[in-house]
Amino acid sequence: MEADLLYQRVAQHYRSAIRSGLMPAGERMPSVRSLTRLHQVSLSTALQACRRLEDEGLLEARPRSGYFVRPPRRTSIAPAAEPDVRRAPDPAQFVGIHDRVSAFVATGELQPVSFDFGATYAEPGIYPGEALKAAAIRVLRRQPELLVRPVSPAGELALRTAIARRALDGGLHLSPDEITITHGCIEALNVALRAVAQPGDVVAVESPTYFGLLQVLESLGLRALEIPTSPHTGLSIEALELAFETQPGIKAVVASPDFQNPLGCVMPDADKARLVALCERRRVPLIEDDTYGMLGDDDTPLKPLKAWDTTGNVIRCVSLRKTVAPGLRLGWVSGGRLHARIQMLKYAQSRANEALGQLTMAEFLGSSAYDRHVARLRRQIKHQRERVAEAIAAWFPPGTRLSLPRGGMLLWVELPPGCGAHALFEAGMRYGIRTVPGTLFSNTHRYDHFLRISCGYTVTHETEQALRLLGGLCTAK
Amino acid sequence: MEADLLYQRVAQHYRSAIRSGLMPAGERMPSVRSLTRLHQVSLSTALQACRRLEDEGLLEARPRSGYFVRPPRRTSIAPAAEPDVRRAPDPAQFVGIHDRVSAFVATGELQPVSFDFGATYAEPGIYPGEALKAAAIRVLRRQPELLVRPVSPAGELALRTAIARRALDGGLHLSPDEITITHGCIEALNVALRAVAQPGDVVAVESPTYFGLLQVLESLGLRALEIPTSPHTGLSIEALELAFETQPGIKAVVASPDFQNPLGCVMPDADKARLVALCERRRVPLIEDDTYGMLGDDDTPLKPLKAWDTTGNVIRCVSLRKTVAPGLRLGWVSGGRLHARIQMLKYAQSRANEALGQLTMAEFLGSSAYDRHVARLRRQIKHQRERVAEAIAAWFPPGTRLSLPRGGMLLWVELPPGCGAHALFEAGMRYGIRTVPGTLFSNTHRYDHFLRISCGYTVTHETEQALRLLGGLCTAK
Repeated sequence: MEADLLYQRVAQHYRSAIRSGLMPAGERMPSVRSLTRLHQVSLSTALQACRRLEDEGLLEARPRSGYFVRPPRRTSIAPAAEPDVRRAPDPAQFVGIHDRVSAFVATGELQPVSFDFGATYAEPGIYPGEALKAAAIRVLRRQPELLVRPVSPAGELALRTAIARRALDGGLHLSPDEITITHGCIEALNVALRAVAQPGDVVAVESPTYFGLLQVLESLGLRALEIPTSPHTGLSIEALELAFETQPGIKAVVASPDFQNPLGCVMPDADKARLVALCERRRVPLIEDDTYGMLGDDDTPLKPLKAWDTTGNVIRCVSLRKTVAPGLRLGWVSGGRLHARIQMLKYAQSRANEALGQLTMAEFLGSSAYDRHVARLRRQIKHQRERVAEAIAAWFPPGTRLSLPRGGMLLWVELPPGCGAHALFEAGMRYGIRTVPGTLFSNTHRYDHFLRISCGYTVTHETEQALRLLGGLCTAK
Repeated sequence: MEADLLYQRVAQHYRSAIRSGLMPAGERMPSVRSLTRLHQVSLSTALQACRRLEDEGLLEARPRSGYFVRPPRRTSIAPAAEPDVRRAPDPAQFVGIHDRVSAFVATGELQPVSFDFGATYAEPGIYPGEALKAAAIRVLRRQPELLVRPVSPAGELALRTAIARRALDGGLHLSPDEITITHGCIEALNVALRAVAQPGDVVAVESPTYFGLLQVLESLGLRALEIPTSPHTGLSIEALELAFETQPGIKAVVASPDFQNPLGCVMPDADKARLVALCERRRVPLIEDDTYGMLGDDDTPLKPLKAWDTTGNVIRCVSLRKTVAPGLRLGWVSGGRLHARIQMLKYAQSRANEALGQLTMAEFLGSSAYDRHVARLRRQIKHQRERVAEAIAAWFPPGTRLSLPRGGMLLWVELPPGCGAHALFEAGMRYGIRTVPGTLFSNTHRYDHFLRISCGYTVTHETEQALRLLGGLCTAK
């Protein structure tokens, strides 16, 4: 039997048990290991079944205790719809997103924001501000000439070493020489794309995708080919295969397999392996955008696409900003067989990063304070994500759809027919409630009735009331 | 009489007096003000005459005391030759400099460097390391969340304000809103070029020019049109006019009018005005690269090209690195009528710079410590430049040519016929003496017998002996 039918069968078994009340709220699921025995399936199939039920809000994971049946939601909400992966792909288009983004940013700046559901990072208080400040002061005291001596071209070795060691946890063997430090993940994406594509070239991207990526494509004069992407399992490999067959000349694929922005979906390992193999077979470079990959609810690290790369065809771009320090503009890129060219482009574009921020980050990454911070951050955003999702389920009008991701801080909300996201965004802004309309996440208008709601900030009763108000504004239209 | 004949006449008057011994070494020149009276010329003509004699090594400027007759050099050296500005321009070419630069960098990294005449900044000890460190720690203590809160998109207002105030000294009125902070001048040049040119387009540049600019052009797929540039007065306006007439489709002009890298030349004010007017008339954006402009021997600030810009056609790109802090990757761009587009490109390329470095720089720029630092730096590099130039005059073989710039830290040395710069660079490296061969400063081979020698490091007896050795290696070939 196909692996995905197997996990569906296991999931259906417990889904009925929970829905019928046979397994009441609070009851412990059999452990993943027992599931393998009970259902004669592999560990990964058992885990996939549990995660699916978790996505559907039927189970919740408790660290080191396993899965438990969740109390029913106050209001049930339909999960996000799957895209039609067999539809003919949209034609590749030059991106024209900049004006929409500017208008969005301008609106956000003109009005005071009391409830920020628009951010892509968590609130400053969640991050290790004190520890980083102390590390920065230590670095300055230890190296008094740091601000006046020239910087090292590829980035500080201490940081590249710390990154290489942390990457091992995700099953990735990189030497510090294969890592170039960049000004955030966005610069990594810029140099990766510049290394593989010229203006006018076509790049396959997820649909919906992070508007920052669309802006990069626009600024580089590249054309975006939007590939249907599942809110649960990410970029559709079938749809990408179809695109390769029908649209010649795709120069790169950009995918964000783990807690994708805006969907929050995670690509299953089997799909990651298929995606890496497919791009390799087609000799099309695969650019991996890993921004939220560290922020899963689970302790088990997700394996990046790059871990399946045996030929150097995957260019891995990583943000350290969302996980560790929104105020440090640090990211990195590992360019596989194109690394030398990427390093040259980074050097020609902005030279090396300053040493101070890098050495501060290296101190922190190398310490156990990092592990404690990440564990705390995961718990907190999981809690916030669940509370926000519950408020949406409770207060948004019937017809709203939402799947709860297993990590990250973003929720992708499909509004009921007739409710436009841009109008809702503007209505919300009048009450100081900032969200991001789906209009920004595609060059098409396919997501004009979606809203991205970020859960980076502490959820209070007032937050829930703000979401109630927002839900009301949605009905009113 | 034409202004340039007038200053020649005044200069010739004192040149004869000095050469004949009528004005012995150490004698004070009449003040610039008295010269205007004595010769019935304008202040700027009088100043131009003095500067010309200074360039020729006959006079030296002493801060707040005026010009004095210099002791004769141990060996006389011919001034740098003027280019033929009426020669037909080279055809515009795609740049292929990267491999040469890589080979140069690799050689420099493989061997230990005892005497670094290759740097583009001064030695760390000359910069205000302690003051910047203290400022950084103050900033961190005052804003404990600085490293964990998001950064402001256009750069920190405090820094943009400090820059705008300092720019006033150079006769430039900019509001902080017209300034975008970048990762060094190199990023400013990248976004400026991307705002005005597409791959394949032609950009006029000085010849010779900074190899970093050539790398940027290469990485962006632009074609360079090298315009003859005088080692004394900079980019030839005549040659540029000729280029405009004979080569249609020039999309931008990049010029570094003050202490150009590698020539060290300064464009006279009249030429600056003509250049700005010419580019405006042709509707071709003029990109100004100001890296060393603050490092003149003189207290009088040089007026940037942007000060003549009345229509927004000049894009000003400035480095703060060489003047204040080699370890902070800070520069800025003011894009005139293209500023909004440049800001968008900077945002899409690397987002805003980190706040810590910016606020540290803002504290320092806003204090009088900055003025004291710049005055000290100017004195020191002037002294170093003169000693290095004297050692070259004394020890390099006959036929070597060199004009002494009035600021900056670079000397552009023409080697005698038969002495190749690359061979000399390699020979020097075997003794730990790093220089930069002229091969890197053009896409042609016109400067293969030139050497750029930087004077950023303290000159000791050993430094002079290193130059003596280098001069000997040159003869030996």
